[in-house]
Amino acid sequence: MQLTDAQRLDWLRLIRTDGVGPRTFRILINRFGGAAGALEAMPDLGRRQGKRLEPPTRAQAEDEIAALARLGGRLIATDEAEYPRLLQQTDAAPPLIALRGAPILNRPAVALVGSRNASTAGLAFTERLARGLGEAGLTVVSGLARGIDARAHKASLPAGTVAVMAGGQDKIYPANHAVLVDAILGEGGAVLAEMPMGWVPRGRDFPRRNRIISGVSYGTVVIEAARRSGSLITARYAVEQNREVFAVPGSPLDPRAEGTNDLIRQGATLVSEVAHVLDVLGPIIERGPEADAAPARGRPDLREQPDFWDEIDLDAANLDAHDDPDLLRPPEPVASDSPHDPPEPADDRARIVALLGPSPVGTDELARSAGIGIRVVQTVLLELELDGRIERHGSGVVSLLSR
Amino acid sequence: MQLTDAQRLDWLRLIRTDGVGPRTFRILINRFGGAAGALEAMPDLGRRQGKRLEPPTRAQAEDEIAALARLGGRLIATDEAEYPRLLQQTDAAPPLIALRGAPILNRPAVALVGSRNASTAGLAFTERLARGLGEAGLTVVSGLARGIDARAHKASLPAGTVAVMAGGQDKIYPANHAVLVDAILGEGGAVLAEMPMGWVPRGRDFPRRNRIISGVSYGTVVIEAARRSGSLITARYAVEQNREVFAVPGSPLDPRAEGTNDLIRQGATLVSEVAHVLDVLGPIIERGPEADAAPARGRPDLREQPDFWDEIDLDAANLDAHDDPDLLRPPEPVASDSPHDPPEPADDRARIVALLGPSPVGTDELARSAGIGIRVVQTVLLELELDGRIERHGSGVVSLLSR
Repeated sequence: MQLTDAQRLDWLRLIRTDGVGPRTFRILINRFGGAAGALEAMPDLGRRQGKRLEPPTRAQAEDEIAALARLGGRLIATDEAEYPRLLQQTDAAPPLIALRGAPILNRPAVALVGSRNASTAGLAFTERLARGLGEAGLTVVSGLARGIDARAHKASLPAGTVAVMAGGQDKIYPANHAVLVDAILGEGGAVLAEMPMGWVPRGRDFPRRNRIISGVSYGTVVIEAARRSGSLITARYAVEQNREVFAVPGSPLDPRAEGTNDLIRQGATLVSEVAHVLDVLGPIIERGPEADAAPARGRPDLREQPDFWDEIDLDAANLDAHDDPDLLRPPEPVASDSPHDPPEPADDRARIVALLGPSPVGTDELARSAGIGIRVVQTVLLELELDGRIERHGSGVVSLLSR
Repeated sequence: MQLTDAQRLDWLRLIRTDGVGPRTFRILINRFGGAAGALEAMPDLGRRQGKRLEPPTRAQAEDEIAALARLGGRLIATDEAEYPRLLQQTDAAPPLIALRGAPILNRPAVALVGSRNASTAGLAFTERLARGLGEAGLTVVSGLARGIDARAHKASLPAGTVAVMAGGQDKIYPANHAVLVDAILGEGGAVLAEMPMGWVPRGRDFPRRNRIISGVSYGTVVIEAARRSGSLITARYAVEQNREVFAVPGSPLDPRAEGTNDLIRQGATLVSEVAHVLDVLGPIIERGPEADAAPARGRPDLREQPDFWDEIDLDAANLDAHDDPDLLRPPEPVASDSPHDPPEPADDRARIVALLGPSPVGTDELARSAGIGIRVVQTVLLELELDGRIERHGSGVVSLLSR
């Protein structure tokens, strides 16, 4: 599928609306039949929350697309062929990604991540690994950071490497890696960004970005990582995305190996040679991106180590902050003596719940019975669905679930 | 059980006989009802093989015991209370060990082994680990070598540490570790040796000795080890003895970490903290030395990695060379026109086999029927048993197994 220019503009306006993150975006376009419908519903949704939900104007969205085009970039939507299929399968995949460079995002890829203040040995091993993986036909994905990331990109330049940025396409961080970006683009690689043009990356944008690094890759190799470092966030995302996790061991006396040694103890595959990655990923790549998760491999399942992963704070990624929780949830009930102007959403909700029961009922009928506009009914039903209160039976037919 | 002085002398004479190793020793005393009976059978066994089997004289054995006593040592037999129970359970446990120092061999122990040319980081981590394990109440066992071994002993001196030597008690290797031996003995530790007083250790004695290091221990921690190094032999013995194996990770660029990283990939427990050893061994020690093997722990079973272990050459240990294979096996059949003097053992064997069948028959009756002396009959039956040709039914009753 390919978006029309108009659709792409709507998608961009919706995802650039404050409070709309990838999850909310998906729910909204499903419920309102597309971005256009969701944009129309914005004022209602905002009024119900007592806040202003203002999507950027068409002109602002067109400006972003034009600025990106001047850098040689374009926006790719989740449903489009060029969008990385592995990323598409992840929770909270960005609806649009800004891409510069070659259309290589559906080549089999592996992420290499690690410390910014890497050791000499860590850098040397990164180089060996990145070169070897590139020579074996894998695309090396990393985060353009100092240290391990930069070395991974450099060593895999000839094979075409993918950098995922935390800021906008025009806000390279660190700034002196502009040279590296040029080299990546010049040698058939690609640069991805989720955030808008002009977006200067803040601290929380880096962990948020990490889900894309793991998300476009069949596996993530952590080369050096202190405890609670950003690379472990990438590893946690990889696990949640049901991807392979590899870690390079190091001396117990080196704090940069604490994170990787921990990962190995939890079940990550120990990597001391290129072949250790290829042996695991080869069969998985052969099965293709749509195949089921790999079967158990007679070692601890990283997914079943909640105590370990709970220590690695995904909240830092702040992904949910982009999905305003109020946006899709009912406000607090107000006291009964409060003025009934502006229109009282809690009343709407109570009235609709009262009209619902275990027998399926049509949305239109519900709206008529309640004397409430269809858009408000749809919004309340969306809230109720998110709360797990109703079941949908297709064709706008719903029923109340017993609590 | 406690040996009498006479029995201990017989045991010593038998195990010090050329061609008698721990396995042959055990078979012989079982078949001949004790070391005295086996010593009596030696001339017969030798004659049948056309070689001289000469146990040392009583006087020679007494000299060894006296020389050991002058060093403050004594011989302990497998059946005696002071003999390490964990070692007793192993295949090819030495029938006698020479012990100097405190009777601490039945305290819970853990082996720490590694490279002689250890890295500074490896030595520092050894120190941390050995001290921590000692403080946790475990006895640290090692091989008195330069590098990791020496550091492990030194750091665990206050807790009482056990050194296992490859040569005799008076042949400390390396010689300048005599000071370390004195320290070990002075601080409540112990020094073990399988080989006789005066035995200068040769290359093959070190891997042979390694089975004792792993054998007295609940688990073996390999700290730094190159591929195919002696420490991996200790690890392989530990696996075959159904003991825990731990390994300390290191940089893939450090050859001294290749062996340990390999071990971790094969299922050894990665150790970067003292607690990683204690967490595994604690419950096993609690169950005690007689308990069954640990249940599967959701990681690869080291015992099921034949390809890996096949690369680690136990033949270097040359354990079987001490068990002369000819000693307990029949000679090649001779051509029928060969002279019948000396007495023809192949004939004896053929006659006895012909007299045996699936019905159990007594040994005495068999000897009478064959017209062969009871001692020769017993020897032939031993050979047939080792070949899996006969079944024993107790009280000297045997039957032929169908092929």
